[in-house]
Amino acid sequence: MLLLSRAVAPGLRQACRLKSTPARLCIRACCTNDSFQPQRPSFTFSGEFVDIHPGGASKLMLAAGGPLEPFWAHYAVHNQPHVQEMLAEYKIGELSPDDKAPSVLKTSDPYADDPTRHSALKVNTQHPFNAEPPPELLTENYITPNPIFFTRNHLPVPNVDPDTYRLNVAGPPGGQSLCLSLDDLYQFPKHEVTVTLQCAGNRRSEMTQFKEVRGLEWSLGAISTARWAGARLCDVLAQAGHQLCETEAHVCFEGLDSDPTGTPYGASIPLARAMDPEAEVLLAYEMNGQPLPRDHGFPVRVVVPGVVGARHVKWLGRVSVEPEESFSHWQRRDYKGFSPSVDWDTVDFDSAPSIQELPVQSAITQPKEGETIEAGEVTVRGYAWSGGGRAVVRVDVSLDGGLTWQVAELEGEEQRARKAWAWRLWHLQAPLPAGKKELNIVCKAVDDSYNVQPDTVAPIWNLRGVLNNAWHRVHVHVAP
Amino acid sequence: MLLLSRAVAPGLRQACRLKSTPARLCIRACCTNDSFQPQRPSFTFSGEFVDIHPGGASKLMLAAGGPLEPFWAHYAVHNQPHVQEMLAEYKIGELSPDDKAPSVLKTSDPYADDPTRHSALKVNTQHPFNAEPPPELLTENYITPNPIFFTRNHLPVPNVDPDTYRLNVAGPPGGQSLCLSLDDLYQFPKHEVTVTLQCAGNRRSEMTQFKEVRGLEWSLGAISTARWAGARLCDVLAQAGHQLCETEAHVCFEGLDSDPTGTPYGASIPLARAMDPEAEVLLAYEMNGQPLPRDHGFPVRVVVPGVVGARHVKWLGRVSVEPEESFSHWQRRDYKGFSPSVDWDTVDFDSAPSIQELPVQSAITQPKEGETIEAGEVTVRGYAWSGGGRAVVRVDVSLDGGLTWQVAELEGEEQRARKAWAWRLWHLQAPLPAGKKELNIVCKAVDDSYNVQPDTVAPIWNLRGVLNNAWHRVHVHVAP
Repeated sequence: MLLLSRAVAPGLRQACRLKSTPARLCIRACCTNDSFQPQRPSFTFSGEFVDIHPGGASKLMLAAGGPLEPFWAHYAVHNQPHVQEMLAEYKIGELSPDDKAPSVLKTSDPYADDPTRHSALKVNTQHPFNAEPPPELLTENYITPNPIFFTRNHLPVPNVDPDTYRLNVAGPPGGQSLCLSLDDLYQFPKHEVTVTLQCAGNRRSEMTQFKEVRGLEWSLGAISTARWAGARLCDVLAQAGHQLCETEAHVCFEGLDSDPTGTPYGASIPLARAMDPEAEVLLAYEMNGQPLPRDHGFPVRVVVPGVVGARHVKWLGRVSVEPEESFSHWQRRDYKGFSPSVDWDTVDFDSAPSIQELPVQSAITQPKEGETIEAGEVTVRGYAWSGGGRAVVRVDVSLDGGLTWQVAELEGEEQRARKAWAWRLWHLQAPLPAGKKELNIVCKAVDDSYNVQPDTVAPIWNLRGVLNNAWHRVHVHVAP
Repeated sequence: MLLLSRAVAPGLRQACRLKSTPARLCIRACCTNDSFQPQRPSFTFSGEFVDIHPGGASKLMLAAGGPLEPFWAHYAVHNQPHVQEMLAEYKIGELSPDDKAPSVLKTSDPYADDPTRHSALKVNTQHPFNAEPPPELLTENYITPNPIFFTRNHLPVPNVDPDTYRLNVAGPPGGQSLCLSLDDLYQFPKHEVTVTLQCAGNRRSEMTQFKEVRGLEWSLGAISTARWAGARLCDVLAQAGHQLCETEAHVCFEGLDSDPTGTPYGASIPLARAMDPEAEVLLAYEMNGQPLPRDHGFPVRVVVPGVVGARHVKWLGRVSVEPEESFSHWQRRDYKGFSPSVDWDTVDFDSAPSIQELPVQSAITQPKEGETIEAGEVTVRGYAWSGGGRAVVRVDVSLDGGLTWQVAELEGEEQRARKAWAWRLWHLQAPLPAGKKELNIVCKAVDDSYNVQPDTVAPIWNLRGVLNNAWHRVHVHVAP
């Protein structure tokens, strides 16, 4: 509930000897729900925090003039010791119960209606739900079964009624917008394509080992592959009257998932990609022959082959063509890469492009870190993938930490030129050097632009822990 | 001149106790021109060498049944100690002067008619001419002046009469071929584009420092940028009746430069790239506002933005659309990347794709290796580029060998999305840590697919020394 309005800011500023200008001193207050955060019964925090909020000032401003509880409930991922520690520094007082006002926003658990999930998933956060398949399941099949496909939700899962569902496609200036039911969408030619999705934060946990980052602690499973089917975005845009234009433009997507203020998840891709039939961007309604599971965007999600997962907007509600990228937090204030020298004090999100195509990637799924393997021979398995439709042309494996290399066998069919949207699984069977007590297994992939993976994590470390495509390393013991 | 035909092979095989089958025992003989190779007046060498010839058996077979002199003259790059040493092992005897037969092929210097060159160029080989601008000139201008643009010739420079020049463009099956004069080519819409060309062997000398490779010892200057103008290849192909087809196809180019058997330089690119107007592939007749210099393909060369230099065929004589890649040596038996584990005994050229798009690259042109710089402040300059039209989004510079990084300033305009065909020059001005006696300066670039450069050379080492895009490192002393 609101305790301190902007009007009281100057006084508080003085009291707290803050350096911020009054305009920036947007005082927030928090009177937490006892059952939710019993360890912090009530506190307020100050304006300086606005400037350094990891999610950006815009996200924090959503709560200005209102209670924080619904945000705590939505961004439940914040309910961690390091966040509490960080906030403690900004505590400027406690509220008298007399000052409390009744909340007008819903504060019940917005995740209560989330679907049930497969127990094999390694859960990263429950609210919002983020989980990955364990390595031993990840590459068992070329196509990841729907129940264990990695899930990256930013907000509660909306419960969409397929009968009343409508997709709004804004028309060009002067033109008419489309309002498509599912049946309308089924009337477009059905297009199928096998696509690997990868979160920008895949393998973040390795980056954290070098130096702390902020983000979900993904292991190597924030990547999965499915056969998607749906209407091509270019067909739908064409029906709405859109054409490629000379100037740069962007197709903006909005999800039906939203935060307590009604702000939806959003992202955008360049119009040139959206309009290119060869880019095979889909408005997908099927995943591996089934209607999309709720966690993966039922009834319709965007699938953008070769592009970071964050642009594959789920529970798609609206599509529009704009002169600029989506103004969504996730397009402009997240999912960008920075130099290792950039920290939360110096980061300028406008200075880096939004992540679209991802770099070449590979990882070892067998054996696992710390495992003890039999002497004699080792079988190493894993995946390799590159963004932008670039094919994987080779995977090198080292058993000695990168001193010498062997070429792994790529499984499955040759990939389509310029449309290698899905991963290649690979394996290497190799005799073990006699007397070896441990192995430092390493893999690295090469794509058809001959891009390679960097040797180490430190030089690509970045404050959000995205884009970790350093060589993957697994240390194992050899049974005597 | 020919001394030993295939017919005498079985006898020789027995005499030499060679293991090769008679079919593979293609005896070659060489009676060298005294003025050319006085140190090896005459020798023959045996069939086993055919299998391990670095240039592949096909290249060696060109001389079967004929004299070697013209080949020695053309591939004058072979006239080096390590080649002579290698050949000495295969010497199986010397010819009696009575056995010598008169040569029927021209043995005079095929390079006699090569153009004169700018004295600033650092010559790598004279015959064929291969040279690069020195680092201090390379990034002085965004556009490389024609006289110092790096030159990579594989054969002697043809002397083409522009009045009689004709470009043959093979038509589709059942269609008609085009035979285009320069004036015909000028009738197509003139298209201009600024493109950086880079040799696959750029920075090979750093690879050699780790472990010997075979190839021209390029420093960091086998890269240059020009404003090219000409007809778009897609327009010319369309006029010849070609269309994009569902099946994979390739546009094959033949140069007017050829070896003594008349085999021209050749290469190919995928038809999809050739037919895409957005890929801006040119049949260029102008370089920086001038007719092409002879060293750069007068009167017409191919320019394939974002693609390795080897496909930008010079002195273009013929264009055809084929179901397979060019059968040229340079398409199939060279300009491919391999694992560090592959050596000349195990290499399988068919196992790797021909290099087309190149990976992200950067290098430091100032200060130079070993230089002594003033204390106080250092200015680091260099270039960065990536293949496939991917823009350079950041260059990181380290003064301490890669432990800490600073972001360099990118010069010039923002690059066009998906069409960043030319390099970005960059610089960093930074104070020097007090008391530093030496600096290990390092640079690494990031492109808009967030591909990065690998840390070190060893893991990307390959037997031909191509594709070196490891961090560029320069060690300098600081004046006391």
